[in-house]
Amino acid sequence: MIGKIGIGLLGYGNVGVGLVKLLEQSQEVVFSRTGLTFEVIGALVRDPQKPREVALPFLTDDPAEIYLHSKVDIVVEILGGIEPATTYLLEALKHGKHVVTANKAVLAENGSEIYGKAHSLKRRVGIEAAVCGGIPVIKALNQGLVANRINGIDGIMNGTTNYILSQMHRSDVSYQEALTQAQNAGFAEPDPALDVNGSDTAQKLSILARFAFGVDLPWKLIPRHGIEQISSADIHFARKIGYVIRLIGSGHRNGSGIDFRVTPALIPERHPLAHVQDEYNAITIRGDAVDNQMLYGKGAGAFPTASALLADMVDVATGGGIGIGQLNGIEPAQLTTLPTRYYLRFPIPDKPGAIGKLAMHLGEQKISIRNASAELSGSASNVGQVQIVTHQTYPSQIEKAFDKIIEDGLLLGDPVGFPILNPS
Amino acid sequence: MIGKIGIGLLGYGNVGVGLVKLLEQSQEVVFSRTGLTFEVIGALVRDPQKPREVALPFLTDDPAEIYLHSKVDIVVEILGGIEPATTYLLEALKHGKHVVTANKAVLAENGSEIYGKAHSLKRRVGIEAAVCGGIPVIKALNQGLVANRINGIDGIMNGTTNYILSQMHRSDVSYQEALTQAQNAGFAEPDPALDVNGSDTAQKLSILARFAFGVDLPWKLIPRHGIEQISSADIHFARKIGYVIRLIGSGHRNGSGIDFRVTPALIPERHPLAHVQDEYNAITIRGDAVDNQMLYGKGAGAFPTASALLADMVDVATGGGIGIGQLNGIEPAQLTTLPTRYYLRFPIPDKPGAIGKLAMHLGEQKISIRNASAELSGSASNVGQVQIVTHQTYPSQIEKAFDKIIEDGLLLGDPVGFPILNPS
Repeated sequence: MIGKIGIGLLGYGNVGVGLVKLLEQSQEVVFSRTGLTFEVIGALVRDPQKPREVALPFLTDDPAEIYLHSKVDIVVEILGGIEPATTYLLEALKHGKHVVTANKAVLAENGSEIYGKAHSLKRRVGIEAAVCGGIPVIKALNQGLVANRINGIDGIMNGTTNYILSQMHRSDVSYQEALTQAQNAGFAEPDPALDVNGSDTAQKLSILARFAFGVDLPWKLIPRHGIEQISSADIHFARKIGYVIRLIGSGHRNGSGIDFRVTPALIPERHPLAHVQDEYNAITIRGDAVDNQMLYGKGAGAFPTASALLADMVDVATGGGIGIGQLNGIEPAQLTTLPTRYYLRFPIPDKPGAIGKLAMHLGEQKISIRNASAELSGSASNVGQVQIVTHQTYPSQIEKAFDKIIEDGLLLGDPVGFPILNPS
Repeated sequence: MIGKIGIGLLGYGNVGVGLVKLLEQSQEVVFSRTGLTFEVIGALVRDPQKPREVALPFLTDDPAEIYLHSKVDIVVEILGGIEPATTYLLEALKHGKHVVTANKAVLAENGSEIYGKAHSLKRRVGIEAAVCGGIPVIKALNQGLVANRINGIDGIMNGTTNYILSQMHRSDVSYQEALTQAQNAGFAEPDPALDVNGSDTAQKLSILARFAFGVDLPWKLIPRHGIEQISSADIHFARKIGYVIRLIGSGHRNGSGIDFRVTPALIPERHPLAHVQDEYNAITIRGDAVDNQMLYGKGAGAFPTASALLADMVDVATGGGIGIGQLNGIEPAQLTTLPTRYYLRFPIPDKPGAIGKLAMHLGEQKISIRNASAELSGSASNVGQVQIVTHQTYPSQIEKAFDKIIEDGLLLGDPVGFPILNPS
């Protein structure tokens, strides 16, 4: 495509308005860098009569008016939700349009179908905005690091949980207090479940898996743990031994497969991910040629997301985006698990023998202790905390030990276990 | 271009051998991502008879055999030095080849001519490897952040100086000791002048200036200070007030122009650049849509550089690289200076009145002191240090004050002054 590119919007909420404003303010810089200009033809909305902050040539509640419009070259989907977004994207492709989407749920659920349809119809798909907002991580994997076999990724991909954990570290508040602060600051939804339980990160990780590792990975197959169980005791202990806790989505390759996880993890202070604060996102990528890289930036917000959408519109208009390349050799992910060091915390009563029994159960699962610390109150009614750092351990060992310890009636609450990231 | 792309190498040293090895080891992943394969046709070398670690179809000492070869689609220049590299690149373009170069000196001196020639001949130029090795910063500016007006960049772009400063922070050694360690570890040249005096960073900054800000900036116009004068006293003081010292190349825009500098700077520990250690590089980019981003990775080495070269080969083969876009609207850089806080150190004798005179000279230049600390030995023969953090100050105020203070015979050595980066 050259000259003026017609854009049809599916959805016209916050991000849509951000995109239209950005198109206006960036017109000159985009033209000077690419020779292209973009014109928004119209948008699909629920209520075409409702007044809008920025007017468009037309608003419609009929999606066909967008994807059948002769002036629309690229359909930009910013509806959110799996349906009807998936159907509309497929319809747009069928009608000869290229598509750009910010919709991680659609891609995590139906990405393969959409990429496949685009491939067979020789249309292109831009998805940068769906993972980590304004950070060009998909482009880095597809283009900048094209010559690298990717051996590992570790990403802070969810601003809500990162804001909560940053607050817990900084202000010594509880999980509940930090969550409330995040909600008040607009960084957490009224119902934050999909963020704090790791689902959002798992969806993004499943999208990245294809471009990093060339595998198809349904997001529900990713073992995931949320941040709901993290206590001040965990944050304090981590800090004392030189770590911070963050929610990580990771994939690490060994000979037999890839260990994908979403989990809170202890990150050494020297690791670049340890300094990612508040609503920022970052992804470290280990490639066989470049070694460790990190991309850091804002993972959400109307303007960062619009920046990624517009970059994809340029990419798609100039022949980039997800084309034939990323479909060659995609295989189902072979899941494996790699050992890591672990941080464990057990809430126990201050009873003689409790620590001994705990240690015995860990020993029976061949979990080897690197260091341990116990804080007991001296009163049987109060909860004490035993905190342990292990040597290299498999998640299955931890799970079995937890089961046995719970079965044995040793605990006054749920045990907690997070992997510890190696220094990068 | 589709299918098999012919590559002609100008130069076949470390990076060239790295590239040939990487082409071999990444063949499968590159093909699956792009549908392309690359074949090295031959290389220009000084001595075609000398045995090589990895053999090529042919070696020649005649550059025309590379850029006239019918099977060569892309000429990859990894000679280093300004000439004959510039001449060969222009010849290759004239003979219809696309070019990819890792040569920052060529681009800093003759970039405009090369881009202009490529533009007029409809050829493409890949330059990713010339700035920060394996970090895809040129692609981020041209593509991922295409919709952003860039308002500021701050980059650690030189591994040698970053290694030296990391060592000084970590091991409490002097500049000279750290330099020797860097030389022993292979991170500093026997003659490190161009690295430690900031010239290397200035060349990279001048290349980035075009793609970040759309301006033409001859590198010798960039005000630059090296790291030679940094002492343990500076490192200690910085650490005490929560900062680390790094050599930064920066550009910051205001209404009237851009403040470009190469200088050691105090970076607050909360800033993501503060955690860039040893030979790593990183660049923070402030775009109007994405806000702050950072790219982090290895800035040198045969494989990271080869990774960037190969990414550019893909880009050029698929219609990317520096094309018409980046030439529109390029203007000479309008230089300006912005005020920042400053760190100052004065080596003074322990004489009554010395500090008072110092403070008077600063006051005369309207330099306002935020905090100060003096360590005096109590013996007139020993050097004391007065260390000062200023409020917002222009470099010209600092220079004038230094001149007056030196003129007044107050100092026992050179005064030192570095800007302090704002938290990002």
